[in-house]
Amino acid sequence: MSFRSQTTSEYSVLNTDLYQLTMAAGYHVHGLADQRATFELYVRRLPHQRSFLLAAGLEQALDYLEQLHFSVEEVSWLRHLPAFAQLPDSFFERLLNLRFTGDVWALPEGTIFFPYEPIVRISAPLIEAQLVETWLLAMLNFQTSVASKAARIKLAIKNQASAASFIDFGSRRAHGPEASVLAARAAWIGGAAGTSNVLAAQRLGLPVQGTAAHSWTMAFDTEPQAFKAYREVFPEHSTLLVDTYDTVQGVKHAIESGPDLKGVRLDSGDFLGLSLETRQLLDAAGMHSTRIVVSGDMNELKVQDLLKAGAPVDVFGIGTELVTSLDAPSLGGVYKLVELEKADGTIKHALKLSNSKVSYPGSKQVWRRLGPDGKFLSDLLELAETSSKDEPLLLQFMSQGQRCLEQESLVEIQARTLSQLEALPSSLRQLKQVEDYPVTVGPALTKLFDTLKHQHELQLA
Amino acid sequence: MSFRSQTTSEYSVLNTDLYQLTMAAGYHVHGLADQRATFELYVRRLPHQRSFLLAAGLEQALDYLEQLHFSVEEVSWLRHLPAFAQLPDSFFERLLNLRFTGDVWALPEGTIFFPYEPIVRISAPLIEAQLVETWLLAMLNFQTSVASKAARIKLAIKNQASAASFIDFGSRRAHGPEASVLAARAAWIGGAAGTSNVLAAQRLGLPVQGTAAHSWTMAFDTEPQAFKAYREVFPEHSTLLVDTYDTVQGVKHAIESGPDLKGVRLDSGDFLGLSLETRQLLDAAGMHSTRIVVSGDMNELKVQDLLKAGAPVDVFGIGTELVTSLDAPSLGGVYKLVELEKADGTIKHALKLSNSKVSYPGSKQVWRRLGPDGKFLSDLLELAETSSKDEPLLLQFMSQGQRCLEQESLVEIQARTLSQLEALPSSLRQLKQVEDYPVTVGPALTKLFDTLKHQHELQLA
Repeated sequence: MSFRSQTTSEYSVLNTDLYQLTMAAGYHVHGLADQRATFELYVRRLPHQRSFLLAAGLEQALDYLEQLHFSVEEVSWLRHLPAFAQLPDSFFERLLNLRFTGDVWALPEGTIFFPYEPIVRISAPLIEAQLVETWLLAMLNFQTSVASKAARIKLAIKNQASAASFIDFGSRRAHGPEASVLAARAAWIGGAAGTSNVLAAQRLGLPVQGTAAHSWTMAFDTEPQAFKAYREVFPEHSTLLVDTYDTVQGVKHAIESGPDLKGVRLDSGDFLGLSLETRQLLDAAGMHSTRIVVSGDMNELKVQDLLKAGAPVDVFGIGTELVTSLDAPSLGGVYKLVELEKADGTIKHALKLSNSKVSYPGSKQVWRRLGPDGKFLSDLLELAETSSKDEPLLLQFMSQGQRCLEQESLVEIQARTLSQLEALPSSLRQLKQVEDYPVTVGPALTKLFDTLKHQHELQLA
Repeated sequence: MSFRSQTTSEYSVLNTDLYQLTMAAGYHVHGLADQRATFELYVRRLPHQRSFLLAAGLEQALDYLEQLHFSVEEVSWLRHLPAFAQLPDSFFERLLNLRFTGDVWALPEGTIFFPYEPIVRISAPLIEAQLVETWLLAMLNFQTSVASKAARIKLAIKNQASAASFIDFGSRRAHGPEASVLAARAAWIGGAAGTSNVLAAQRLGLPVQGTAAHSWTMAFDTEPQAFKAYREVFPEHSTLLVDTYDTVQGVKHAIESGPDLKGVRLDSGDFLGLSLETRQLLDAAGMHSTRIVVSGDMNELKVQDLLKAGAPVDVFGIGTELVTSLDAPSLGGVYKLVELEKADGTIKHALKLSNSKVSYPGSKQVWRRLGPDGKFLSDLLELAETSSKDEPLLLQFMSQGQRCLEQESLVEIQARTLSQLEALPSSLRQLKQVEDYPVTVGPALTKLFDTLKHQHELQLA
């Protein structure tokens, strides 16, 4: 069978771990499927050398939940799995009628968050809430990783008070073609000025930018011929790649290609020395508005060092490190049951104590306290039923399976990121020294946790 | 606009870098678009601490090339890009009629390869060959990364002469929902026994496996109740997760759930001690065929250490490290112009000398020499027009845009991997010490390279 048809199916309900379906069957058979369950998605720790994370991927998560369903073909395929052969017909009928009918609370995309703070909280019939775990984690883990990496690049630029921007150049290094588009979206959320990915531009409305490749230059007999030919086609939209043979010579050839050159791109070598020399050559030729684009294994630390040293770079093209979040290529987001409302109305709070993997019970909210200067002071993690005079971070996005908050534009989301980065305390704006941000576990949550732990110890005793 | 419709579009021709389209326009305007170009896709170096790579992703690449086209909507969207506003109508007409008409030579999936050896070689009209770069790299870089990582896990098991198997458990940590399915495929190619991803099972026919999650156990008042309930639904297909509260106690509860238990899963703690104790408890209860599954931040080195120490593990469930190829989460595959046939029939060989990024000109083949014991001795990288008595590794998969080799099954591809791993010299089977494998650049290629370099130096002088 061709894989082609499958790529229409990333949103398929079958794009999940098998155990979600075996548990669904178990809940159904035991009459537990309709118990109202609350799950929270969060991280237990920050990646190494990171001070914060930036939420992204919610829009796709809501899309997924809205369209969740089993097709007739999918259900009949499931029936033939050996493990499922003995299951009652009523289970498969339930699947055919299943839709997502739950409530979703979440951090708006572009919100900075910390460990144990829920990014998404879902309350739904147990069978629905369980089924969506794998897909939600794949989407939110990935986009959050890339958006968080992008936010660090943005900080590297802001910390140097530079006017430079950065662009996602990573499509070829992302984990497959879908990841290319998702990474472009997440990079924008984290502060990128655009992407080189045309599909992301077409479908998401992101600004798209492009230059030329070495193969263009190599397709002509000489570099000046190649540059002249490109300028003929794109007189004012040409960014010429100048390092195919010799970079300084390449810059000179670019200058000779005539005025109104949009930019030159340096893709290898000593970027500080080359960018300084390039700027000098361009300025001497009166090409003050010709931009210098730097690409090639860039990351936030290299951006920071170059800008600090005074490299006159206008645009950073960032690929691999951005789209794979190379220093932290996987985010350990988890999705945990925190509360279960039984048929008789009693609430069971879930507690997991095994080893170091502590989880906090109960449906939770996060309140963030700001200082008089508008900077983050501290967060409060507390049961959602309590209240605070500070601003709650989790908002309700879906009610009974329907969206109840208007969809934000990507421009609005990026604006949130930028204002959040402004509000980050300076200790968290550093890229190398990691400082802990204070997240306090509130008194009601602490009390519930201690009570449950005590009950559990009594049971074991 | 909803993103949902986009996910049908990973195969869209617009899923590429903008510069591929600007160069396409340039080639068209200058009458170069139909020059026959040859590009090769290869890596310049192995990831840190790696001795080899394993090719994967070709099947999707061929699918993509077969269906390559621009829709009317895509072309009219492109026309409105500011940079494209001045382009002639004939360019957009060309796009509407564009199909991939080239020849494709490639390493069959499951082939071990080394730096500078082409994984894929494409000869096609320049405009077609250039356009597909980004997408091919995204697909082949990713699947090759995961397949190579999986092959190392397989080696970790084979090197200990263990009968253990491993399963892809990584869907939630892959870089988005499509990457989950692609990773399941690549993991299988590298030697995995199956996946937890149901969509990969449905669409690719991969064996699917599942256990239960902590949330199942937590949805019941006690662990014994949870286990009993699960066994009622899946009497012979239950693998119980035993570490929700206390692992050893969990194993005892699993044993009490009755005979014919398929397995228990350990997901945290000291896996060596716990697996030994678990095996002892299971055997003492006569449950000799109950399998021990170990999951939780596993990788090939931990697998090797556990098996070496005698851990009685039957199945490793491997997630994050496998699906993100965590120690080498991006593969630096490149796609370079190596040859261009001009309208007058003369051949231009492409050469790039800038800095350390050397590329070899000309259309190439790889011949692998085997020893009398069938083990790899050395590879020869040489111009394709030469010949050798050894076996050529690159086969022709497409001729003039049509497939000309029958599609292999994933079972056949995995069998190739396993026989290639058997044929690896023992120095390359080690996971920690890295040894170089001899790849010789043949005399004709060396001569061509030297001649071109000399010509280029004369031009610069």
